[in-house]
Amino acid sequence: MARVLTPRAEDFPRWYQDLIAKAQLADNGPVRGTMVIRPVGYAIWERMQADMDARIKEQGVQNAYFPLFIPENYLRREADHVEGFSPELAVVTHAGGKELAEPLVVRPTSETVIGEFMAKWVDSYRDLPLLLNQWANVVRWELRPRTFLRTTEFLWQEGHTAHATEQDAREHARDIHKNVYEAFMTDLLAIPVVPGRKTRGERFAGATNTMTVEAMMGDGKALQMGTSHELGQNFAKAFDITYSSAERTVEHAWTTSWGTSTRMLGGLIMVHGDDNGLRLPPRLAPIQVQIMVVKAGEGVAEAAAQLRDDLKTAGVRVKLDDRADIPFGRRAVDAELQGIPIRVEVGPRDLANGNAVIARRVDGSKSPVALAQVAGAVVAALEADQQRLYDDALAFRVERTVEVKTLGEAIEAAQTGWARVPWSAVGEAGEKEANGKAVTVRCLTREDGSMPESDEEPGLIAYLGRSY
Amino acid sequence: MARVLTPRAEDFPRWYQDLIAKAQLADNGPVRGTMVIRPVGYAIWERMQADMDARIKEQGVQNAYFPLFIPENYLRREADHVEGFSPELAVVTHAGGKELAEPLVVRPTSETVIGEFMAKWVDSYRDLPLLLNQWANVVRWELRPRTFLRTTEFLWQEGHTAHATEQDAREHARDIHKNVYEAFMTDLLAIPVVPGRKTRGERFAGATNTMTVEAMMGDGKALQMGTSHELGQNFAKAFDITYSSAERTVEHAWTTSWGTSTRMLGGLIMVHGDDNGLRLPPRLAPIQVQIMVVKAGEGVAEAAAQLRDDLKTAGVRVKLDDRADIPFGRRAVDAELQGIPIRVEVGPRDLANGNAVIARRVDGSKSPVALAQVAGAVVAALEADQQRLYDDALAFRVERTVEVKTLGEAIEAAQTGWARVPWSAVGEAGEKEANGKAVTVRCLTREDGSMPESDEEPGLIAYLGRSY
Repeated sequence: MARVLTPRAEDFPRWYQDLIAKAQLADNGPVRGTMVIRPVGYAIWERMQADMDARIKEQGVQNAYFPLFIPENYLRREADHVEGFSPELAVVTHAGGKELAEPLVVRPTSETVIGEFMAKWVDSYRDLPLLLNQWANVVRWELRPRTFLRTTEFLWQEGHTAHATEQDAREHARDIHKNVYEAFMTDLLAIPVVPGRKTRGERFAGATNTMTVEAMMGDGKALQMGTSHELGQNFAKAFDITYSSAERTVEHAWTTSWGTSTRMLGGLIMVHGDDNGLRLPPRLAPIQVQIMVVKAGEGVAEAAAQLRDDLKTAGVRVKLDDRADIPFGRRAVDAELQGIPIRVEVGPRDLANGNAVIARRVDGSKSPVALAQVAGAVVAALEADQQRLYDDALAFRVERTVEVKTLGEAIEAAQTGWARVPWSAVGEAGEKEANGKAVTVRCLTREDGSMPESDEEPGLIAYLGRSY
Repeated sequence: MARVLTPRAEDFPRWYQDLIAKAQLADNGPVRGTMVIRPVGYAIWERMQADMDARIKEQGVQNAYFPLFIPENYLRREADHVEGFSPELAVVTHAGGKELAEPLVVRPTSETVIGEFMAKWVDSYRDLPLLLNQWANVVRWELRPRTFLRTTEFLWQEGHTAHATEQDAREHARDIHKNVYEAFMTDLLAIPVVPGRKTRGERFAGATNTMTVEAMMGDGKALQMGTSHELGQNFAKAFDITYSSAERTVEHAWTTSWGTSTRMLGGLIMVHGDDNGLRLPPRLAPIQVQIMVVKAGEGVAEAAAQLRDDLKTAGVRVKLDDRADIPFGRRAVDAELQGIPIRVEVGPRDLANGNAVIARRVDGSKSPVALAQVAGAVVAALEADQQRLYDDALAFRVERTVEVKTLGEAIEAAQTGWARVPWSAVGEAGEKEANGKAVTVRCLTREDGSMPESDEEPGLIAYLGRSY
């Protein structure tokens, strides 16, 4: 097959941009750093949204919508928060033909405005926990933008919750992290992730604890796929979110926030993509099967339509491509670029033997299957290929992760993948040294992979790597 | 029952704001004219979105996402468009800590930026029609904001399409108008609408034709519930959207746009609300049935749980309210405020007779029903009440619509409802005179209710009314 993309081994960043353009996932917007998400890319995002949204609601969280514009003074109320976000803000100074008395910030995240309304809505301990989520666009000015990974505007969900106790807030943040984020990445995206705790230096602006799920990309770098924050009482104090307890004392609430974004589309591409394009996990794929008329011929159209109906009946998301006037090779290349998990090719030659050909995107294999067996074979292949993508990504991560003892070895190992190194061998001084060499502590975990309660626990493991 | 809201007859606008606050549908945002859509209101919007989205996709339209920020010069390229929107724009002048070289407009609508990308994506007639939609927030600075109806930021869907011929564009705009908008309002929202053509004076900025669906609110005023625009070649020329035809000539495309927004929530309230709160059409309602434990007692919890399971099995969206520690009256008032179509009340007294009580929001009726018959009775009531709401709204509109012959009579009739008057008796001069008295031509239709091809057709009927 002719070369469609710059090969990954030759230039990974170029391959990534090539793939996004040629698979028609996205375009650069007219304003630097913004993006247009094209229908092929947006259909994937919609499926991510629907699945994530159902998982979030299962946790008892309700959706709401808060305004895009935030009065500038709101951001100043929490000291770490304003310091963290100031350089990234876009500011509206004029509206309705006039200069505004107070400039408005375009939300970079909504802790502050939601804090203001939590204060208004929460009165008694009976109003807690208050569990809110919103799907929205946010803006953070990016100096080095890259499609999906770092864009000036991106789409995300942001959860914001208030609790009566630190314990309840902590448990909620962990439930979301494990039952929503980790489960979503694993089950739907087929991406193995390392859940862990961010170091103090890598925490969200205003958080007392940030948890992350980290995934390894196809070039060995790390991508933070989602984060959950314990915010302590910092925002509750800044916005006066108080409640009267059962004992009639007035207490500050404990809040959390957590988010995932269109950045996950970038992770999906860089984990599962190959030199022919994207490979979509079957559970995620908007189109799981494309039935392709190879060329016109007796009985071809009828057989293709019958297969489409069989697959629909079997609950498969199927599309019929009967554009026999466009060369088959070009259509097959496009289907590969867009990562459609299975192509069922129907042409006169195979049909003469009562067969269609099942082509699997995951490994490029092709096999003839009797027409009546196609639906069953496709359903089995979709299930197997979902697992195969996960297994391959996990094997790659294991292969590129090295156990080391010293900071020097860890920085060395991070040039091609990740290092697992005792946190005691790194520490905050070592972290700064690594940062100077473009290597970061991705997260801290316990030896058994479970979530640490603090950075000071003995025996913690640090994952070091380069990152997006 | 104690008075919960300002009665509609006493002060309709006050009733509307009372209802939104007490049913917890929305709050005013911190920036003037913005709103916070609370979970109760947002759940309704989510159901609107899901239903509308499916109807849009059935028309072959694909979702995409375009950037929030539009370079100011884009808006200037289409003369009518910039003139129409200039006074309403919010402008970002600073970002990333610096003043921007070119100010950015926060999208008031996306014709211009989508036009830019259509020009890039369309090459040959084979690329047409290009049918796109996006769900997004938009900003139009409002001097006299009112929750849901006119807010500085609102949520909407905006469809944008490009076609090879005027005929194809026209048919598409009409299909969307009839098969998506009119059908959605009628079937899901139980709102009878008058579809018609806007006069030249009421057209969208840059359109050659604007079609509207107009609904009558509970005070006799009109609300435009959705619009579809034929844009001719105006945007295609401004953004150079051209294609090579089958005959290899280069032609400008014909474009359309169409939109509906969170304003529909305002219409829903004002059409179906009564002095006790909202009344939700059963097909729309996020919660169709609230099972309420009246007070604790032997077998009550078990009976309530059984009814919940029965109703779930019957495909009903059901919520169990077993908060026996909160007075029943207060919970019933809240359920009425929020418009939940049916309450199934389970208490010791009725249970002793083997009954629960079905309370219907649509008319306040209450009847005891044997436990085993509840699910069947509820399903029948939901279907009947959907129709009842539609019928009531239609009867009200008919009652408040007067057939008249002259402009003077029409302006008079518009004080309490709508006037149907020959367009020939109004004309552009009469329209200006009416506007001076806060009466507008809502739309033009043919005598038989069908859509006119132009304002100049003989025999057209004009609907005149006051409006939101």
